Amino acid sequence: MTKFADRIVPIPEGGVMSKIFAAFDYPDALSLGDGVPDASTFPVQELKAMTIEAFDEADDPVINNVLFSYLDGGYPKLKEFIFDRCMNKYNTGNPEMDSIQLFGGAQQLIDLVAKIYCNPGDTIIVEDSSYGGAIFSFEEYQANVVGVPIDEHGIIPEALEETLKREKNVKFIYVIPTFSNPTGIEMSLERRKAVYDLAVKYDVMIFEDSPYFELRYSGDYIPTIKSMDTTGHVIFAGSLSKIICPGIRIGYAIGPKPVMDAILNGKINNDISGPGIIQVAVAKYLEKYDLDAHIAECCDLYRTKRDAMLAALEREMGDIATWTHPEGGFFLWLTIPEGLSGKDFAVYVAEKKHVVLYPGANYHPKGEDVNAVRLNFSVPTEDQIDDCIKKVGDALKEFIELNK
Amino acid sequence: MTKFADRIVPIPEGGVMSKIFAAFDYPDALSLGDGVPDASTFPVQELKAMTIEAFDEADDPVINNVLFSYLDGGYPKLKEFIFDRCMNKYNTGNPEMDSIQLFGGAQQLIDLVAKIYCNPGDTIIVEDSSYGGAIFSFEEYQANVVGVPIDEHGIIPEALEETLKREKNVKFIYVIPTFSNPTGIEMSLERRKAVYDLAVKYDVMIFEDSPYFELRYSGDYIPTIKSMDTTGHVIFAGSLSKIICPGIRIGYAIGPKPVMDAILNGKINNDISGPGIIQVAVAKYLEKYDLDAHIAECCDLYRTKRDAMLAALEREMGDIATWTHPEGGFFLWLTIPEGLSGKDFAVYVAEKKHVVLYPGANYHPKGEDVNAVRLNFSVPTEDQIDDCIKKVGDALKEFIELNK
Repeated sequence: MTKFADRIVPIPEGGVMSKIFAAFDYPDALSLGDGVPDASTFPVQELKAMTIEAFDEADDPVINNVLFSYLDGGYPKLKEFIFDRCMNKYNTGNPEMDSIQLFGGAQQLIDLVAKIYCNPGDTIIVEDSSYGGAIFSFEEYQANVVGVPIDEHGIIPEALEETLKREKNVKFIYVIPTFSNPTGIEMSLERRKAVYDLAVKYDVMIFEDSPYFELRYSGDYIPTIKSMDTTGHVIFAGSLSKIICPGIRIGYAIGPKPVMDAILNGKINNDISGPGIIQVAVAKYLEKYDLDAHIAECCDLYRTKRDAMLAALEREMGDIATWTHPEGGFFLWLTIPEGLSGKDFAVYVAEKKHVVLYPGANYHPKGEDVNAVRLNFSVPTEDQIDDCIKKVGDALKEFIELNK
Repeated sequence: MTKFADRIVPIPEGGVMSKIFAAFDYPDALSLGDGVPDASTFPVQELKAMTIEAFDEADDPVINNVLFSYLDGGYPKLKEFIFDRCMNKYNTGNPEMDSIQLFGGAQQLIDLVAKIYCNPGDTIIVEDSSYGGAIFSFEEYQANVVGVPIDEHGIIPEALEETLKREKNVKFIYVIPTFSNPTGIEMSLERRKAVYDLAVKYDVMIFEDSPYFELRYSGDYIPTIKSMDTTGHVIFAGSLSKIICPGIRIGYAIGPKPVMDAILNGKINNDISGPGIIQVAVAKYLEKYDLDAHIAECCDLYRTKRDAMLAALEREMGDIATWTHPEGGFFLWLTIPEGLSGKDFAVYVAEKKHVVLYPGANYHPKGEDVNAVRLNFSVPTEDQIDDCIKKVGDALKEFIELNK
């Protein structure tokens, strides 16, 4: 068989994840795994109405072209709406310096940013822990992905500077400052400023990935790193996946114009354009409906679920584990006693309790094992959360015994 | 500014293409440039009806998930329909050996095939001339893209074998055997067999890209190279862009299972998944309507346009140029007298006659100039074709004079 490129690393059969997913074979399986929104939040009827309106504009040849042909660079009205919202509501983006582009979800942007910046061996700095889908994508470009320690306030600036000094050809710092996937941690304002200052000092980009930043359930808003950017060192990535639905596949990026031009060129070589009918329907949705009111409803739902999970954790594992207390987003991070394997624990929970959760290793460069697992609270109902956390707590007691 | 990767080659300002596109500033501008379908062929009302039906299934939680959440690997019903059609109607694909995957247009597949196979410096063989969007994408992976001469029957096997012997680390042969973009040429059955045999002999893959193969206006069907594949050496790429519409962004590939698994993994890292609502609507369209009848209608329209262009060429340039006589697809290839520059001629036509057409250089590795241009006949009306070809003919007479 013709040899694949060196970037292709075979996925081992019978690995940890296949053992975990085997739990789904049981009728009583429950999941705290995937990081998707609660399907009840999807504005199905509104999107349907707007899609019909979009189809009804097909007689206009200009709109017809947008709807049904290639759409290099995305639907201008949708781009304008999102850019204006980011600028006016969040001071994120500066029309003098920045432009916006749309992508097939923020994942496509993650791929393209690595593609335009990284030769094999170039360094990308990530928070330790960080989004697995980004780490995999970066590693596919054979980047040297280096984790920097975090605490409850986000990435530690001293450790970041040490890494910037030590590593060669650092291209960008990838951070999820607001309600991180996987930890739920929010980077403090002071840390954001420190990260920006270091990026300028060492002249590397910051890739601020923020798909959850509008899903806040408590605490005060903290400005984006992009809002501090006067030097063109920040690419801000947002997404409609979590606040409307993933199926529309719309992510966006705001960044310095020359960088966005290179990324757009990469996107054209990658898939020419996204589907116009959806972009027009979503633009109509954003024009006609109150997105902030919709987000507020989502937050009410997720706040209840988060609180249910925090209460259940306190009840079931108060004396044997620690966890983060996220003010938003979809996840919290459960740390089990030191010396225990997060991978082995996730497999144990799947096999013995039929609860799916993902090991912390999935969120580390090269899949390094840690004594932690990620818990999702956006999908399960409150009852399921109670049930799951009880089972996870029982499993942890057993697992600690077994590993004594 | 943080340095881009070596793969990023700056696009020169004021280049050939910007001079050509400047023609669009004139109110009488006409185009034989882009390679898109005639918008009148788009089944707008049918797609609208099917999209509404898809939305109406949102109450079913399984379909809701497909429609609005992440859809790893594409909508199974759509994949089955296309695979069955390819197998049963065209003998293209073998369920024992092959599987199908969906992509955001065939362009995404082009990107991913290069990504999974090519280390920098690895060789990809293309027809000389070939699709520019593929060449750009291959060059972004720093592949050594090597052209092999063609004649009116397609790629020349002796030249192909010489190249296979000479070049190092050849990963695949990229061919558009049926109604090539940009030449409109169809590879003969004999040549297809020869290309397949050479791929097996030298153990390299064939990437058979065939977005136009169902748009035939005359001549007899020639089997796909994939239909000859008993050894797992062929990836066949098709697209719904030209026979339904580009805006749905649905391309597909049929290839050996381990290869398709690696490509799917690459797709998940690239954009997680395509938009489910469109995939479900298109699956319903294919189930409910007669695709073959729709394609036959498209062919009737395009046949008339092709015939109009061939007649106009004979009338206007019979004694000063030669051109291909495509039996299908969207393009023909106009060769102007030897020694003349296709780039300069395209700029001349744009500036003097306000007709946009693309220089042959766009379809060659490293953009090497040739004495040819690509003409699109799918978009313009018959009247526009007559008008354009008259203007291109006048321009060619003047251009020959000027270059004497």
